[in-house]
Amino acid sequence: MRVEIWSDIACPWCYVGKARFEKALQAFPHRDDVEVVHRSFELDPHRAKGDVESVLTMLTRKYGMSEAQARAGEDNLGTQAAAEGLQYRTTGRDHGNTFDMHRLLHLAKEQGRQDELIQILYRANFAEERSVFTEGDERLVELAVEAGLDAEDVRKVLADPTAYAEAVRADEREAAELGANGVPFFVLDRAYGVSGAQPAEVFAQALTQAWGERSPLKLIEQGDADACGPDGCAVPQR
Amino acid sequence: MRVEIWSDIACPWCYVGKARFEKALQAFPHRDDVEVVHRSFELDPHRAKGDVESVLTMLTRKYGMSEAQARAGEDNLGTQAAAEGLQYRTTGRDHGNTFDMHRLLHLAKEQGRQDELIQILYRANFAEERSVFTEGDERLVELAVEAGLDAEDVRKVLADPTAYAEAVRADEREAAELGANGVPFFVLDRAYGVSGAQPAEVFAQALTQAWGERSPLKLIEQGDADACGPDGCAVPQR
Repeated sequence: MRVEIWSDIACPWCYVGKARFEKALQAFPHRDDVEVVHRSFELDPHRAKGDVESVLTMLTRKYGMSEAQARAGEDNLGTQAAAEGLQYRTTGRDHGNTFDMHRLLHLAKEQGRQDELIQILYRANFAEERSVFTEGDERLVELAVEAGLDAEDVRKVLADPTAYAEAVRADEREAAELGANGVPFFVLDRAYGVSGAQPAEVFAQALTQAWGERSPLKLIEQGDADACGPDGCAVPQR
Repeated sequence: MRVEIWSDIACPWCYVGKARFEKALQAFPHRDDVEVVHRSFELDPHRAKGDVESVLTMLTRKYGMSEAQARAGEDNLGTQAAAEGLQYRTTGRDHGNTFDMHRLLHLAKEQGRQDELIQILYRANFAEERSVFTEGDERLVELAVEAGLDAEDVRKVLADPTAYAEAVRADEREAAELGANGVPFFVLDRAYGVSGAQPAEVFAQALTQAWGERSPLKLIEQGDADACGPDGCAVPQR
């Protein structure tokens, strides 16, 4: 079974939701048969690279919250994160464009390091005082190397804005096609969707349901195709 | 859409079938949205590593063919391969255990080189006089390096028989669960199956049908989950 998770590094509920999903996955009897793939979704795709502001300013300016509302929202996120065993800085975080991070996540996918990288990016952004926005490319190189990527590979991708750009856009188009208008968005075997940082119990139910309802394949052209089996080649199939 | 192809390096119809599938894929309008994954299937899993014999001997001994039948089968394969623009040596090929090659294909998958490697292994086995069975590990290192893998990574995997062994076994279990008793076996979005080296037209039909019938996601728990969208975080979803 395959679970695809659309998310953004700048999305606190993606950080919390991933932990809740993983709690359910750890307890799932067929966990070794579940492959997890991260898909790109930018919350703020039109923001220029390097255009960085504090989360508080962004919340009050962009979403019209009062400062008290914005602070209460961050405090709530801190509480929810703590309940999942996650650190979350409720003040002092910043916000910016995440396109380059998504491009690097596609590089990391090719090298089997995608989950490591997204976890390190989340931690840097939400838990640590290591801005993923203000330190330029070298911070991303540093974090990607921690995830096991090669520094030169990473610099090459960062220096070429077309590298993996189409892969990011394709993920975003796919999210829209699947009806996701926010993240995190979880898709199980392209059959079931779970929207938002639901409780672990909901993910557990989704995993069980999707696993139980995997439908038998519909065979196209069941004729005597040329194939090889235990009894030699060109045996009739099924 | 995702297409998984179960196959074995020692399976001539897999070599031919892959070319037929690719012809259909190249002409498929949504080809850029199709991801191809290779899955492991060993035709001869109980054969010891290093136990190599000629294809002709294997066909007559294991499958009880007459030498004339075996030669006619190879000639037919040569003709079918040529029709797909593939070279195929109808005499002089050998046969052995392919477990290590499948382990390397899983290493290659992690590095985004799986399709390159399987193509190079097929060519070495079916088209070129470069046995994948008799030259020991160094032939596999040489071929994997041609596919873009690092020689040291490859040697490490070959030296450790447990590396990716479980990944190979998991693919084989999954093939059995899906009802595949021979290869090549193509699975489209876990919804449609195509067994054998069918004509390109059958693959074209399968791609079109699977694409057209992608079903909308069933949403589990549609409540007001915590999520982030274009209008900020913690907005009700859908």
